[in-house]
Amino acid sequence: MQGIELHAIDLMKRAGKYIRQMIDHAYHIEEKTNKSDLVTEIDKNVEDLLIEGILNQYPDHHIYGEEGRAARPETLGGTIWFVDPIDGTMNFIRQKRHFAISIAIMVEGELKYGFVYDVMADEMFHSIKGLGAYENGIRLAPIEEKPVREAIICMNATWVTANRRIDAALLAPLVRDAVGVRAIGAASLELAWVAAGRVDGYITMRNMPWDYAAGQMLIEELGGRVGTIEGDAMTFQEQTSVLAGSRTFVADVLTYVNK
Amino acid sequence: MQGIELHAIDLMKRAGKYIRQMIDHAYHIEEKTNKSDLVTEIDKNVEDLLIEGILNQYPDHHIYGEEGRAARPETLGGTIWFVDPIDGTMNFIRQKRHFAISIAIMVEGELKYGFVYDVMADEMFHSIKGLGAYENGIRLAPIEEKPVREAIICMNATWVTANRRIDAALLAPLVRDAVGVRAIGAASLELAWVAAGRVDGYITMRNMPWDYAAGQMLIEELGGRVGTIEGDAMTFQEQTSVLAGSRTFVADVLTYVNK
Repeated sequence: MQGIELHAIDLMKRAGKYIRQMIDHAYHIEEKTNKSDLVTEIDKNVEDLLIEGILNQYPDHHIYGEEGRAARPETLGGTIWFVDPIDGTMNFIRQKRHFAISIAIMVEGELKYGFVYDVMADEMFHSIKGLGAYENGIRLAPIEEKPVREAIICMNATWVTANRRIDAALLAPLVRDAVGVRAIGAASLELAWVAAGRVDGYITMRNMPWDYAAGQMLIEELGGRVGTIEGDAMTFQEQTSVLAGSRTFVADVLTYVNK
Repeated sequence: MQGIELHAIDLMKRAGKYIRQMIDHAYHIEEKTNKSDLVTEIDKNVEDLLIEGILNQYPDHHIYGEEGRAARPETLGGTIWFVDPIDGTMNFIRQKRHFAISIAIMVEGELKYGFVYDVMADEMFHSIKGLGAYENGIRLAPIEEKPVREAIICMNATWVTANRRIDAALLAPLVRDAVGVRAIGAASLELAWVAAGRVDGYITMRNMPWDYAAGQMLIEELGGRVGTIEGDAMTFQEQTSVLAGSRTFVADVLTYVNK
């Protein structure tokens, strides 16, 4: 698979160029499961571009992606691409920024490559197992060890108000203790920002593998930790909570949650 | 005061150029009131540049600004400049983006000019009383009327967890009902994003006039509303809550809060 990262980056950059050309034009928007869960014809076209570009080069690889038109692997064997053509569709539609193309490549159950491309900022975050993580080709520093009290946390207000996934009282003290809380609205980008040291942690109760796998690669390659809010490892199979940051941050958050 | 808006924009653009030159260099950071309230030597230098530039041209104008080295007017008479040299200092330090220079000009108690400059994006939002609001010189459309259930709200998670300023239970239902919640971490920029239609509302319990006055001008010039969470008008004198958005959004939020 020599050159697979070049192929992935080339596909993502070409998809990004298409998105930038289309973003100011009229396009069709559909609701999927609810009013917050949208998909546009641009999402679909970008997914086609990416899937076609992957399978033309690697016809035996598997693709696992948001829009559900790609086959979902039964196991984590072989080579799997986790693909989100536009993570942060709401931001794409309304803000015309703060969305990303996210791709992770897993080989025989192990993440090997992670890519998060902030299309409008033209910032490509990428990592290769054992070779570090990079922002537009510049090597990122190891993630700084910070406890909650020194941290800026990316976390949506949803998780500290009544919700079906976690007792809001468990996460609310994080808001009080942290230096600040932010919510950008695109998981892969928020994880990339943890990797780039722009924030110190990311917490959500609801992510799919194509949302977090690429960001997880970036963070782990820089010495950080990504797992569930219960402290478990990711399974890459289904919807899950995500707790990401330095070892210190993740360990500290677990003391809040496991009270 | 012919040309005052050109003078303000010139000063802000020059300050922005200085910030972009300095942002990757080492600089001194101080805590003000607490670990979340920071000031850097760049904030101070930008404030000097702005204040000097204003008073050289308009020696009888008053300046009311964050870092407190400018005289604070006793009344709202005469011409007052509300100046925040860097709104979002934490973002400036950590993210190197998502901060703004914010300036509003009030004449005999009435806001006449508002400017919010996103330095790293090089986006200048400006408005002149009666002449509309603009993003990099392009006229912005009137703010779309959206109730909470169709809105993306900029609101920090702080205000839906236990805090000293409002019962968290009052604002929490907004999180459930809105299409989405975001937190960027710079009030003037979040207000400018309301004006630009990137989000639909902004809520905070703690803002100073230099944080909100420029954004208020932008929003009001586009048919929107800015007041306190109690539905009162701004006094421009002290710390206040801020509720901003379309008439429909503001009226709808008031029904949640005044239960």
